[in-house]
Amino acid sequence: MSGEICGQRNAMNIKDYMEHVGSSARAASRIVARASTAAKNAALHAMAGEIRSGREGLLAANLRDVEQARSEGLDAAMIDRLTLTAGGIETMAQGLEQVAALPDPVGDISDLKRRPSGIQVGKMRVPLGVVGIIYEARPNVTADAAALCLKSGNAAILRGGREALASNQAIAACVREGLTIAGLPESAVQILDTTDRAAVGYLVAMPQFVDVIVPRGGRGLIERIAAEARVPVIKHLDGICHVYIDDDADIDMAIRIADNAKTQRYGTCNTMETLLVAQAIAGRVLPQLAKIYTDKGVELRGCEQARALIPEMHAACEEDWSTEYLAPILSVRLVAGLDDAILHIARYGSQHTDAIVTENYSHALRFLREVDSSSVMVNASTRFADGFEYGLGAEIGISTDKFHARGPVGLEGLTSQKWIVLGTGETRS
Amino acid sequence: MSGEICGQRNAMNIKDYMEHVGSSARAASRIVARASTAAKNAALHAMAGEIRSGREGLLAANLRDVEQARSEGLDAAMIDRLTLTAGGIETMAQGLEQVAALPDPVGDISDLKRRPSGIQVGKMRVPLGVVGIIYEARPNVTADAAALCLKSGNAAILRGGREALASNQAIAACVREGLTIAGLPESAVQILDTTDRAAVGYLVAMPQFVDVIVPRGGRGLIERIAAEARVPVIKHLDGICHVYIDDDADIDMAIRIADNAKTQRYGTCNTMETLLVAQAIAGRVLPQLAKIYTDKGVELRGCEQARALIPEMHAACEEDWSTEYLAPILSVRLVAGLDDAILHIARYGSQHTDAIVTENYSHALRFLREVDSSSVMVNASTRFADGFEYGLGAEIGISTDKFHARGPVGLEGLTSQKWIVLGTGETRS
Repeated sequence: MSGEICGQRNAMNIKDYMEHVGSSARAASRIVARASTAAKNAALHAMAGEIRSGREGLLAANLRDVEQARSEGLDAAMIDRLTLTAGGIETMAQGLEQVAALPDPVGDISDLKRRPSGIQVGKMRVPLGVVGIIYEARPNVTADAAALCLKSGNAAILRGGREALASNQAIAACVREGLTIAGLPESAVQILDTTDRAAVGYLVAMPQFVDVIVPRGGRGLIERIAAEARVPVIKHLDGICHVYIDDDADIDMAIRIADNAKTQRYGTCNTMETLLVAQAIAGRVLPQLAKIYTDKGVELRGCEQARALIPEMHAACEEDWSTEYLAPILSVRLVAGLDDAILHIARYGSQHTDAIVTENYSHALRFLREVDSSSVMVNASTRFADGFEYGLGAEIGISTDKFHARGPVGLEGLTSQKWIVLGTGETRS
Repeated sequence: MSGEICGQRNAMNIKDYMEHVGSSARAASRIVARASTAAKNAALHAMAGEIRSGREGLLAANLRDVEQARSEGLDAAMIDRLTLTAGGIETMAQGLEQVAALPDPVGDISDLKRRPSGIQVGKMRVPLGVVGIIYEARPNVTADAAALCLKSGNAAILRGGREALASNQAIAACVREGLTIAGLPESAVQILDTTDRAAVGYLVAMPQFVDVIVPRGGRGLIERIAAEARVPVIKHLDGICHVYIDDDADIDMAIRIADNAKTQRYGTCNTMETLLVAQAIAGRVLPQLAKIYTDKGVELRGCEQARALIPEMHAACEEDWSTEYLAPILSVRLVAGLDDAILHIARYGSQHTDAIVTENYSHALRFLREVDSSSVMVNASTRFADGFEYGLGAEIGISTDKFHARGPVGLEGLTSQKWIVLGTGETRS
């Protein structure tokens, strides 16, 4: 089947191919939008079965990608993200089953209330339509994204990275087979078989066929897509996350949280990149923290006042405050108090995730209200900003936009709500 | 003050002016986002007071606009929309007071739930930031839009029509005075004093200063803005609304609803433009309805089968099914049944508002789920699709988009939800 589409495409130009993909996705979206929960779950379970029984084929396809990547000299981190193992394939299958186990959001009716005219007005949750997902390296995104889009009643068009083409096509075959087994149209999830960059240009500029784009990748990719897009984009940009240790913080808790937020994992978007400490408490908290970080090999870059307390710190430059290190490096700044911390976050933050550690009720409430980030936390590690930790079951990304979906985007973020009116013959006067 | 800004602008080019407006709006947005409900309501009441006490000045300014419009030969409908009366000014003041009386959505916390890790996760409703509104003729939109943006904690930049410049500047002065009286920054609501089209180009392409654009006007205006915009746009496009009379409809109710949906007002976006009737019931419902419409002067344009029943009907052409008449003209089509009606609406509708009249439970549920419009109704007139009728208190427009806000957009549509996490020292393991 993959070969057939591939053959068709070679005979067409990219524009025709993308219009064919787009119009089939639009047609399929009408069918999956009204598909029963049972049919969608059956497809997800069938996909998991296909992935398990097709393991050897998936590993062989992945090996071709990895060998190609090695011959092109791609770096070790990229090859690591690209590589599928038997365990990774089982995780992928389990991920599909986990999405099947989530409640179906489609058709949920909420907020029904009777109006003076007699009508009842409420909202019904409905799919967005066709979701385009553009991502890099990791082939497991293919299965995750397919599952979330299908469960939320959307058709999906997936565009994976050039380096994972063989792996993604092999996963695509399992996905299509699962859809067919469940009696759903196989064009409900289409994985592009072209690595031509022009395909992305068409994908993001077909509002007649595509309702929203979710790019997953580096800042460069996302900004390029946002600039070209003619449809809404759910953007996942930098995570310059802060922990602010308030003058009223519990010292032990502050140390525990600041340690965890930085060192539990260095490369994730919800990792703390800047630690802000109230001057009044800095002398009691920073020396202990500096020792913990230094023991774990974290490089500290501090403001003048922080360096007065911890002379071993490097000096931070202006650029440090707006840098997402994704590495064992932490910038540290002393601030006068809550107002100063909020100002720093407004100026340098990326509206991703910021936390305060405090025992002061008013400070906690003000931080919650005034920090304009997709996740704002009191007395918890920024590392919790995650679809699984929030109970969404899975996430298609973490939005740093304010519009539509903010923070971890799960099934709900892939739907919208329409108004419904239940009348008994009312007319307007 | 208006003169002062005007003087500044003449000395600057439009780009500098718009960046000045944008950056002051961004700064003001931080202040109104955290303003108390009391302060926002005080400003709205003060604006209403200024508008009432400034009535003579407003009428004089409006007269200048109307005379200018007459001298330029603008049509009577446009001059009607432009003209302010003493009664219209009182309505404007009352509109401000009604928005003051609405519940403040900002800071609302919902869906708090405890997760296995111990953290509590929920959502807090927050302003979008800076809202740009682009509209035509009616000066009362200036006060309405200012009120809705302020109450939802947003800063607003308003761009009214060229023909209403003097009226809008007079209203702007009242709005600024009201903000000042309440101790809020006057740049929280700015009304552009330029009619240069280039200003709109900048307004829709400053993502660093403007978070969302709401255009109110004809299809041409909205499509131009959507094409140029570099920020999200809440679009209000055509209202090609349908009433489908199912074979299981109550005849009297069907006649009442189909009459009201078309004839209660002709020029509104939620007026029915196409009537769909199940073949099995057409003979019992269409002759009575045709008489009602004809008596009221509504021109009927029917399909072949409809004309077989009502020979006086004109013949509808293909274009009729996708035309928003906004006039006493109605297209009429007989359909085989529910499936056929849903297909017709998917093909020709504009995803605005569509209604079914039926006593059949399954048909009602299927219509609600499968018709992909911002409002879907059972046994009620499409004319109810309106912010006031839905209980939003007021609306800034009716969105035909699926993303973020759908249908009537009130205070809630001008906000988003961020995630909040309430912890007790939890760290991630």
